[in-house]
Amino acid sequence: MIQVPRGTQDILPKESYKWQFIEKKLQEIAKNYNYDEIRTPMFESTDLFVRAVGGSTDIVNKEMYTFQDKGDRSLTLRPEGTAPVARSYIENKMQHNVEQPVKLFYVAPMFRYERKQKGRYRQFVQFGVEAIGVEDPLIDVEILSMLMHIYQSFGLKNLKLVINSIGDMESRNEYNKALVEHFSPRIGEFCSDCQSRIHTNPMRILDCKKDRDHELVKNAPRMYDYLNDESKNYFETVKAKLDDLNIAYAVDYNLVRGLDYYTHTAFELMSNADGFGAITTLCGGGRYNGLLEMMDGPDKTGIGFALSIERLILALEAEGIDIPNEKGLDLYVCTMTDEARDLAGTLLHKLRNRGISADMDYENRKLKAQMKDADRKNARYTIVLGEDEIQNQSADLKNMQTGETKKLSFEEMISTMEEI
Amino acid sequence: MIQVPRGTQDILPKESYKWQFIEKKLQEIAKNYNYDEIRTPMFESTDLFVRAVGGSTDIVNKEMYTFQDKGDRSLTLRPEGTAPVARSYIENKMQHNVEQPVKLFYVAPMFRYERKQKGRYRQFVQFGVEAIGVEDPLIDVEILSMLMHIYQSFGLKNLKLVINSIGDMESRNEYNKALVEHFSPRIGEFCSDCQSRIHTNPMRILDCKKDRDHELVKNAPRMYDYLNDESKNYFETVKAKLDDLNIAYAVDYNLVRGLDYYTHTAFELMSNADGFGAITTLCGGGRYNGLLEMMDGPDKTGIGFALSIERLILALEAEGIDIPNEKGLDLYVCTMTDEARDLAGTLLHKLRNRGISADMDYENRKLKAQMKDADRKNARYTIVLGEDEIQNQSADLKNMQTGETKKLSFEEMISTMEEI
Repeated sequence: MIQVPRGTQDILPKESYKWQFIEKKLQEIAKNYNYDEIRTPMFESTDLFVRAVGGSTDIVNKEMYTFQDKGDRSLTLRPEGTAPVARSYIENKMQHNVEQPVKLFYVAPMFRYERKQKGRYRQFVQFGVEAIGVEDPLIDVEILSMLMHIYQSFGLKNLKLVINSIGDMESRNEYNKALVEHFSPRIGEFCSDCQSRIHTNPMRILDCKKDRDHELVKNAPRMYDYLNDESKNYFETVKAKLDDLNIAYAVDYNLVRGLDYYTHTAFELMSNADGFGAITTLCGGGRYNGLLEMMDGPDKTGIGFALSIERLILALEAEGIDIPNEKGLDLYVCTMTDEARDLAGTLLHKLRNRGISADMDYENRKLKAQMKDADRKNARYTIVLGEDEIQNQSADLKNMQTGETKKLSFEEMISTMEEI
Repeated sequence: MIQVPRGTQDILPKESYKWQFIEKKLQEIAKNYNYDEIRTPMFESTDLFVRAVGGSTDIVNKEMYTFQDKGDRSLTLRPEGTAPVARSYIENKMQHNVEQPVKLFYVAPMFRYERKQKGRYRQFVQFGVEAIGVEDPLIDVEILSMLMHIYQSFGLKNLKLVINSIGDMESRNEYNKALVEHFSPRIGEFCSDCQSRIHTNPMRILDCKKDRDHELVKNAPRMYDYLNDESKNYFETVKAKLDDLNIAYAVDYNLVRGLDYYTHTAFELMSNADGFGAITTLCGGGRYNGLLEMMDGPDKTGIGFALSIERLILALEAEGIDIPNEKGLDLYVCTMTDEARDLAGTLLHKLRNRGISADMDYENRKLKAQMKDADRKNARYTIVLGEDEIQNQSADLKNMQTGETKKLSFEEMISTMEEI
């Protein structure tokens, strides 16, 4: 028997309403913040991710689904959403759009070949937003406002927003120098990844999972002390605006976004709900002022975040929040005879064409079983068709909530259902 | 510069509203017919398609994106939707579901490595439905009713529904024998594909694009004459019910669905709109009673169809039907000073958190340019914030349609906007 590919899942009707509900809400919130949808292909040239995400990252080295197409191009199923959006921005010359910044969102499957574990699949859905073209603390705050709004709108309470500033390129270079000086004398005590990070990207030593308890990590120089005046000012403005909006946050000087192009604001949102388990980060993001230029695009700045819908569902479960299942039927038609089934088919056709959700029994079950089926399908109204009803071309429309019934001709019934 | 992979496209905001609108409508119609969403992964074991779609088809031989994952499994980006749904049905033992038939729909990207041509992309979105578990002409008619309802609900007029019956397995075998007898003496006059089809699947000679004008195709035996009584009866019942519902159709005895597992009802919907070009088939489907068993699943029958959203968009264009763009903003906040911009940020935060879509200028443009931006963004209301408004903590809310204004405190404005 052929099975679902390892590490992936089927989302069946008993679960798919969760994704539908969440995606709909995310789209509404994106609309309120005036972000428009972009859809990029499921795969990109492998080069794109090697260049934008970085050849030294786990994503590129270990986790990508890479293959040759029949034209011998190397393609990769997208592991993340920012690089494709940046590619599309450059290719479509969006820096010339009249409306600036360009505010985009996506709801898109992502693919990472990761070890199987609870709540982590090799295909998962990310919702992400990108605001490209304007560098202004107002935009950083808009992004953080949207992020918090999203999680709060689902009723989540145990949220912790952590922010930091990585500063501009100048500050970042100064800081990296200080880190090299700090770690070099004892770098032999660190893991092999860190021993190479000190040459490629010393900041990433700070968020190494293996060495996080090393005393040199704990007393490492703070990024904040190396921010130049402009960067410090930018960060202070962002913080002041967050205070104005009563958006609670903590500053974590060790929060770095390892990629080369990150600048200024970096952030993560965590859940501290009991029983949420080891994975506490719900969402991450930041400003990436160097990305477009690094990809031979225009000198434009951007900021964004991405969240996994699957992890959001886990967070809701951890806080005991139910996702409403809006499944239901306007009318269920019970049938007593073969002739009644024919009539039911015609009625259903007319009802559904007028926008009324309706169904019937297809298995020749007894009336009692049909009523049970109506109940299971959450039908608001039912009718029963038998010989009398066919004779009289009318039936009793029953409100399943109140038990009330009303005798109506079939034409009246259709128009009544349309109005309800 | 890295570009979008050959044969694929970015769907940008100026276009993405079309997909959003169509997908939303399709989901509503599916709901009216009581079909629930299933989401299967973007890729499957390659075996699945070789087995279900067939090793001798163009799809499997020429058009699949196949690759090895890091665990050395052969995976394929799904080229069609029925096989994954059937795989999931079997794996999740849906024959034991209480509600029967199992009625499923999907809205899902599909991938075929095809020659580039207008309206044909290597990644496209299919909407498909499957009703599995009950063999009853009522279900066949329900499926056809939904299909016509979908296209008509978008306002399309130039539609032609073509149906045929392939009969049950017994009828099908008899017919194939007759075809072999008919074609064998002159099979040398046919294309090489047909010369192999006569051994593997003689019915497919009937829809060969190369040999369609051969006199032996034109005077080939008709499937209908080989239907056994049961199959004939099934077909006649479907046709009578379609007549009852005033669903117009033509019977095309040469319409065959080539795959081995197709039985009984087969259908295609075409557009005969002027200027729609060479691709006239909008949608195809049929009953596939042999599929599940062939995949080592239970002896259950199914019927379904799939349509390409991209081709639906082309059909709408060919008939000059506009897809409504519902993009718009409730409120646009114009700003005169830096202080006003700060205030605007706070107001936007509050408005958006109450479900109001709102935006402002981020580029320090002059008031006139901001009003133009508001207009472009299709804002229903605007306010202008300057020194006076900050002083008085109030502003004139302007209805952009009527030109009316109303002086309101910021708190009043938020609650007014909430009610509008």
